[in-house]
Amino acid sequence: MTSSVSVVELQDIRDAAQRIAGAAHRTPVLRSRTLDALVGARVYLKAENLQRVGAFKFRGAYNAIARLTPDQLARGIAAYSSGNHAQAVALAAREVGSTAVIVMPADTPAAKLDAVAGYGAEIITYDRYTENREQIGQALAAERGLALIPPYEHPDVIAGQGTAALELLEDAGDLDALVVPVGGGGLIAGSATAAKGLQPHITVIGVEPAAGDDTRRSLAAGERVTIPVPRTIADGQAAPTPGELTFSVNRRLVDDIVLVTDDEIRDALRFAVDRLKTVLEPSGASGLAALLAGKLSPVPARIGVILSGGNVGAARLASLLAA
Amino acid sequence: MTSSVSVVELQDIRDAAQRIAGAAHRTPVLRSRTLDALVGARVYLKAENLQRVGAFKFRGAYNAIARLTPDQLARGIAAYSSGNHAQAVALAAREVGSTAVIVMPADTPAAKLDAVAGYGAEIITYDRYTENREQIGQALAAERGLALIPPYEHPDVIAGQGTAALELLEDAGDLDALVVPVGGGGLIAGSATAAKGLQPHITVIGVEPAAGDDTRRSLAAGERVTIPVPRTIADGQAAPTPGELTFSVNRRLVDDIVLVTDDEIRDALRFAVDRLKTVLEPSGASGLAALLAGKLSPVPARIGVILSGGNVGAARLASLLAA
Repeated sequence: MTSSVSVVELQDIRDAAQRIAGAAHRTPVLRSRTLDALVGARVYLKAENLQRVGAFKFRGAYNAIARLTPDQLARGIAAYSSGNHAQAVALAAREVGSTAVIVMPADTPAAKLDAVAGYGAEIITYDRYTENREQIGQALAAERGLALIPPYEHPDVIAGQGTAALELLEDAGDLDALVVPVGGGGLIAGSATAAKGLQPHITVIGVEPAAGDDTRRSLAAGERVTIPVPRTIADGQAAPTPGELTFSVNRRLVDDIVLVTDDEIRDALRFAVDRLKTVLEPSGASGLAALLAGKLSPVPARIGVILSGGNVGAARLASLLAA
Repeated sequence: MTSSVSVVELQDIRDAAQRIAGAAHRTPVLRSRTLDALVGARVYLKAENLQRVGAFKFRGAYNAIARLTPDQLARGIAAYSSGNHAQAVALAAREVGSTAVIVMPADTPAAKLDAVAGYGAEIITYDRYTENREQIGQALAAERGLALIPPYEHPDVIAGQGTAALELLEDAGDLDALVVPVGGGGLIAGSATAAKGLQPHITVIGVEPAAGDDTRRSLAAGERVTIPVPRTIADGQAAPTPGELTFSVNRRLVDDIVLVTDDEIRDALRFAVDRLKTVLEPSGASGLAALLAGKLSPVPARIGVILSGGNVGAARLASLLAA
């Protein structure tokens, strides 16, 4: 049986929305007549690529950090991430007057290291082929007395991510379905909690890369399964296994998972450039890819989609569009 | 002496704003902390790449078409353009229940022909190396009794384009300078009329590609000069000579013209992708390029910039970003 006590409730997400107001952007909801005609539905796109640090991750990081005590903030914050969570924690820490130490792979692209350093964070690198980032992060936090903010396995992080869906449903009104990219599962766990809390009849559909369908398999099996590290252009969705906490939410609230190929994601990146004039990273485009590739059947009449991030970089975008 | 009767007054632009409301988008004003820090100013970016048909041109086309008589609308509309004006007239004609015939070069990329045809317009092609599009357009209009909507040499078109600046100044408040790309001169003529009408002390700065500085030369000479057809990636700004009507406005109201190279425009396209997560066409990025390349000196404290369009296409964007 599922637990009778939820990890996150709608009220936690409402509280998170209050907490992040003024720090996070209330991102716009994009509409496209062309997209509506292609999909055969009214589609509402929540543009988290326009969020601070370029991804939804700022919501969860800021919400978790804003709940720390003055003592914790004085000692500082730790996180491990090669991606958007690193920048999110670095910026959120600076915004509340604290400091951050981020554990990042030694082979992280220089642009990402520079972005994190640019927010004033200290960076500690590790060898991702031989070392375990969670152990390094936990040891570092223990040694220096830092508060460790994980990328998704934390109720405050999940609640913060859920504010993206809360805003979308407030702005778009009643929706029949909400489509959300799935990586570690924090965004969809928070979003499903918000969506089903506000509109109990909404269908919540997760999108995974075809090569990285750990959550789809886990839901089918009724327990968390681990797959080989996925090879996909959707680097933000390359988790080999769902989070324990996030899976406990998602097994209850996620109705279905659909899969998209890398080629379908590339088509969505092109559509975003050609029609929406907006820049998405591959993970951020997977929900849009599912719609454009006809993965929703039957097609709901009113669909919300979270465009989760836009940190792709001009050079990589050029090669993805050209491929 | 300049004429005592203006081609376009602030009230014409206010009237145009009423006329296009509901048909055109009120586009957002983008802000970037990174851009502010790089430029050393507060910068307000008017995102006309998010306008309908992907460029400011819809404003002028719709305003001019909305002023036609029922008889004129019943007979139909003609225009000549290889670019954004073609799509703008095609869509505006459809929106008011009229029909459009667009004269386009035979070697126009298929995507642009398809877009115009997709709005229900008839397309007539010509050989741009041997034939004159204005003559073809005028003959066609005379023969079929169509109303010809020129790309910039028309007071209603100029007034419509000015609504972009009107909205920007309403949203951003007092500005010290307004930076506007210059092609045929319609956007800056309308924008300068709106800006100086609302805020008489504002400085209006035009931006041309270094290879296509016909308006800068014309302002310096005090009369319209013609240069060889410019070779630049900024295809929307490749006019060899200013319009007669637009120049009569711009010689009165434009304070300065600055020039940007194709490489500086490419840098601005990259910045837009990396930091703004937004897609610009080269002409649409020239104002941003001027700021990033330090062409404004001394730097005004509060600067408005019109990002005039985003119709670049994924394949061309990829090659521009990679170059």
